[in-house]
Amino acid sequence: MATAGKVIKCKAAVAWEAGKPLSIEEVEVAPPQAMEVRVKILYTALCHTDVYFWEAKGQTPVFPRILGHEAGGIVESVGEGVTELAPGDHVLPVFTGECKECAHCKSEESNMCDLLRINVDRGVMIGDGKSRFTINGKPIFHFVGTSTFSEYTVIHVGCLAKINPEAPLDKVCVLSCGISTGLGATLNVAKPVKGSTVAIFGLGAVGLAAMEGARLAGASRIIGVDLNPAKYEEAKKFGCTDFVNPKDHDKPVQEVLVEMTNGGVDRSVECTGNVNAMISAFECVHDGWGVAVLVGVPHKEAVFKTHPMNFLNERTLKGTFFGNYKPRTDLPNVVEMYMKKELEVEKFITHSVPFSEINTAFDLMLKGEGLRCIMRMGE
Amino acid sequence: MATAGKVIKCKAAVAWEAGKPLSIEEVEVAPPQAMEVRVKILYTALCHTDVYFWEAKGQTPVFPRILGHEAGGIVESVGEGVTELAPGDHVLPVFTGECKECAHCKSEESNMCDLLRINVDRGVMIGDGKSRFTINGKPIFHFVGTSTFSEYTVIHVGCLAKINPEAPLDKVCVLSCGISTGLGATLNVAKPVKGSTVAIFGLGAVGLAAMEGARLAGASRIIGVDLNPAKYEEAKKFGCTDFVNPKDHDKPVQEVLVEMTNGGVDRSVECTGNVNAMISAFECVHDGWGVAVLVGVPHKEAVFKTHPMNFLNERTLKGTFFGNYKPRTDLPNVVEMYMKKELEVEKFITHSVPFSEINTAFDLMLKGEGLRCIMRMGE
Repeated sequence: MATAGKVIKCKAAVAWEAGKPLSIEEVEVAPPQAMEVRVKILYTALCHTDVYFWEAKGQTPVFPRILGHEAGGIVESVGEGVTELAPGDHVLPVFTGECKECAHCKSEESNMCDLLRINVDRGVMIGDGKSRFTINGKPIFHFVGTSTFSEYTVIHVGCLAKINPEAPLDKVCVLSCGISTGLGATLNVAKPVKGSTVAIFGLGAVGLAAMEGARLAGASRIIGVDLNPAKYEEAKKFGCTDFVNPKDHDKPVQEVLVEMTNGGVDRSVECTGNVNAMISAFECVHDGWGVAVLVGVPHKEAVFKTHPMNFLNERTLKGTFFGNYKPRTDLPNVVEMYMKKELEVEKFITHSVPFSEINTAFDLMLKGEGLRCIMRMGE
Repeated sequence: MATAGKVIKCKAAVAWEAGKPLSIEEVEVAPPQAMEVRVKILYTALCHTDVYFWEAKGQTPVFPRILGHEAGGIVESVGEGVTELAPGDHVLPVFTGECKECAHCKSEESNMCDLLRINVDRGVMIGDGKSRFTINGKPIFHFVGTSTFSEYTVIHVGCLAKINPEAPLDKVCVLSCGISTGLGATLNVAKPVKGSTVAIFGLGAVGLAAMEGARLAGASRIIGVDLNPAKYEEAKKFGCTDFVNPKDHDKPVQEVLVEMTNGGVDRSVECTGNVNAMISAFECVHDGWGVAVLVGVPHKEAVFKTHPMNFLNERTLKGTFFGNYKPRTDLPNVVEMYMKKELEVEKFITHSVPFSEINTAFDLMLKGEGLRCIMRMGE
């Protein structure tokens, strides 16, 4: 393309400081260096993690920064050594990578790449320790290697999944983070068999994606657990057959679930990050075969506590990161699940705004309204 | 047989009260009732659990009682409804059963039979709530449905594994409890792949059986962890390549293991029951794919504590009961592993005494000498 090798000037939403509305600015995006790819972002969505690092409460403040990590785009140009991608390829940027060389990438079980594993504090490219974004020559920091709140961004090739070019990017862009995280937690880690009973703790986008996984796996009973009774109605679209609000009961919710299910659920998936919900999610699974999967990220000081007999009685507790999907290897197949009309992505997309109205998306998320808000770049 | 349907008088070792030496007595053994089998015990071994309930510290005292649960014998007669076993069949009694009808028995994953799961407080037959043992008409209590410290005993058909009659009962008798528990924990639950690194916590008979499982699975590095340095020499026979004594280090043993193994072991198996060892066994497994398996039975007040991020980083914690073996379905295959000379049983049998010297076996175990002491019935 005509822009290859040159600096591109384009619009980006810059977070100048913690908690302040983003500002749409003209930024310079440098050409990709070795093993990097410059991507034209067409659609990006807002995820809780963006808001979390924008608020930067208890997080290392890294500002000014271009946030954003759930997106879909098209390769504009590639740096030296990039052979797997070429200009025109459709890609999903991913906040964690797959180098294909380390022990984790070579393991069939792990997706926690040693080289490109998520790093929330690093605001620069891994290759040379520098940013590719500047405003009047002053560097603007990257976010989790993706920075998709920009019309163009530079991403390590290991953090890009090449997908079916027929897939509509305004839909599948949401598969690059939260939806795959929840879906994979159920399909790849909890692995409920057909006809089983599954409990999902926390009915935000990730929890509903975990529920979608239970529906796809053929679970016959899917119990949603949430403190907000309004969640039940929406959850029904994702296969929810029963709803439990812990506030409605005097006894611990795990006891309620064990009673409801004649001894416990077959599988549970915890998507809140609250350590007490984690304990409930573990203790509500059936002895003999129950498996609980932790997805939600806990507080730094959280302590998981349980009586070890709960394990001895043949319960399993596992955690997962990005639904155990390897970004480059597995994400294209998740897109295919959508293309085959198995996975229903549309129901996660509750809002859509022009990129220029990105602060509206932040407002919606802060108010807890909707699941995913898509931002249309170039508008 | 001529004895079928009649009371049999024979020798049994009776525990009259907690902690007092057993006394060899003549007992009357009633004929088996519905779904029961009377077995002539040929060899029995002593397991820690017998000593634990004989000492009855913190346990419900159930006396007078005939202990014993690791044994091999031959069916003498069967009660009404028993079709799977006939006089002359070689059997291993098992302290936990398999009814083949309940949800656990029907699950491929569980061996925790609802009907015949271990019950340490019940001293009578499950069918009619009565004992089959008497001395001068006065009932003597059973132990975990087996009571193998008797020349004849009555056992529910669901607690008997029918084995290859060619298998030497003086060897395979030890497969009916501890050895299978450790072996199955590794082979059925931890499932290390060839070439992996496995840590075993606690090098008693169960831990060494777990180690034997790691050897059979082709683990290339097997790390034994024990507070007693003398255990290393014996453990070498079971494939131990490295030994770590937590007392030799200032830092937590999990940190020592993580450093020794460039990030953690692939699998660990905890066989002590100490909750701190459980925590170490979990925290020493590699992120991304590590699996820790709990075997040792904890104290009633024990609390397992860890930071939930240890799970989120794709570690798995599971517990197992009797190595996840279904007694009737799977134990015959464990015997076949011995017959094919894969599983080495002889190295677990360090002592052998006449049944009349049963208190010697208790002394050896209390002193921590040897692994298994076989008692030869009729001597």
